[in-house]
Amino acid sequence: MRDFSSDLSALALNTATLGHNLDGYGAGWPVERVIDACAERGFAGLVFWRREIAASAQTIGERVRANGMKVVGLCRTPYIVGATAPPNLDEARGSIDMAAALGTDIVTIVTGGTEPGTRGVAESQLLLVERVAELAEYAADRGVNLALEPLNPMFGGNRTCLFTVAEAIRICEQTGAPNVGVAVDVYHVWWDTTLRQTLQAAAEPRIFGYHLCDWLADTGDMLLDRGMMGDGVADLKNIRRAVESAGYEGACEVEIFSAADWWQRDPGEVLDRIVERFRTLC
Amino acid sequence: MRDFSSDLSALALNTATLGHNLDGYGAGWPVERVIDACAERGFAGLVFWRREIAASAQTIGERVRANGMKVVGLCRTPYIVGATAPPNLDEARGSIDMAAALGTDIVTIVTGGTEPGTRGVAESQLLLVERVAELAEYAADRGVNLALEPLNPMFGGNRTCLFTVAEAIRICEQTGAPNVGVAVDVYHVWWDTTLRQTLQAAAEPRIFGYHLCDWLADTGDMLLDRGMMGDGVADLKNIRRAVESAGYEGACEVEIFSAADWWQRDPGEVLDRIVERFRTLC
Repeated sequence: MRDFSSDLSALALNTATLGHNLDGYGAGWPVERVIDACAERGFAGLVFWRREIAASAQTIGERVRANGMKVVGLCRTPYIVGATAPPNLDEARGSIDMAAALGTDIVTIVTGGTEPGTRGVAESQLLLVERVAELAEYAADRGVNLALEPLNPMFGGNRTCLFTVAEAIRICEQTGAPNVGVAVDVYHVWWDTTLRQTLQAAAEPRIFGYHLCDWLADTGDMLLDRGMMGDGVADLKNIRRAVESAGYEGACEVEIFSAADWWQRDPGEVLDRIVERFRTLC
Repeated sequence: MRDFSSDLSALALNTATLGHNLDGYGAGWPVERVIDACAERGFAGLVFWRREIAASAQTIGERVRANGMKVVGLCRTPYIVGATAPPNLDEARGSIDMAAALGTDIVTIVTGGTEPGTRGVAESQLLLVERVAELAEYAADRGVNLALEPLNPMFGGNRTCLFTVAEAIRICEQTGAPNVGVAVDVYHVWWDTTLRQTLQAAAEPRIFGYHLCDWLADTGDMLLDRGMMGDGVADLKNIRRAVESAGYEGACEVEIFSAADWWQRDPGEVLDRIVERFRTLC
């Protein structure tokens, strides 16, 4: 296992952790200030959301690299299945173009939920395989990889039709595309006692992302009540051990949606706390 | 598969579906009126909550049977692990006594969450095995079976340390007690695409309960926004097929916590709707 106590070379910030200044949460720091603040503290990379970068993908990517960091990924395609997915894949292809312009090789996919007129998730998953395969080809031509993110089962219905890493790995295999892998997010997988075994059993567990936060024992809001590492009950070191045993050597991306707590604080304080917790608890 | 279109002999009501009159929800029907209303509509059984029956377990059980129905189960022991579990198993034993007095052979167990001072769920599950084994012996002496209910992973942390039917079956096996089985609740398992395979692979899948509701695609509240059968995205017939393939021939217990919708309606209307949906959609 990598030793983070004296090495921040895996630490990345998902900018949502500072409250998405476009949402009325957080201190409203412009993205440039976020980049500089991460660089000052020794972060190794950042993950952006599409709405933050709009037409300035290339400039933002360059600023990150000029600060000695890396753009670790882009959040995310629109849903590609389910009731609220756009009618075609144009916007998803646009997000792949944006990733290429940013200079990152990872775009995350949150799938979207159950297809209208169907029940359960089986038919949605079949459609998902088709659409991911189609996007994978487009992405490969641009040097981009797709990271399928399974979500906590509470997000079934309208946000996801992938619930476990095992399921995401199966979908990857079914697409047959080498540039499709899995994003493992502590918030979504912390409860899954089969994770290590799943990763060990996989013929080729392509982990394209590892997202850090904590699961608060008394989670009050499904979406916006994630905990800072160390404040919850997730066994962070054990999860990282499982992920690294499967060959993962990439970034640990801190992604905390926390409307009532961390999004109310000064972003500098949040970043300092992340660094401290990352060194000692992750 | 059993044909419910003309046969209500499997239909049971979990009384929480009418709003728990002690909580300020629902129409506040006394339990006697609930029993009579179920009998009028051809229900085959009821499941009660401890707080509803207090010291009158025997009388209530007799009233159910005098109406030609059965007490299908008792909800539930207190948590037996986790931060809010009572310090000993006395109250859990009391709930077993109450089940015996009611004349039902099933008590449901919702485990409780992660033990204080631990992370993840591994240690909580070890403790769970010990405590369930201890309760199983006490229950066996009173002719009572224990149904371990895995919960949707969103309830990890403070309510459960069991998340899937596979995990619950493993815990049952580890207790080594023949009177410990699993309660399968649509709300908690609808997303699990491995359910059928899990039940088929189990050496002896002791299913002691099957709970019906639906998962609303846009679930707004973790606890109190369950859907009526047919209003959500759960593949109800497919789940029942999996459960019946594993030998289950018991009751289908309708359990809908719905503060904003069904708990606001007249209980008679709710019961009528249940019967209609049960015949056609379950």
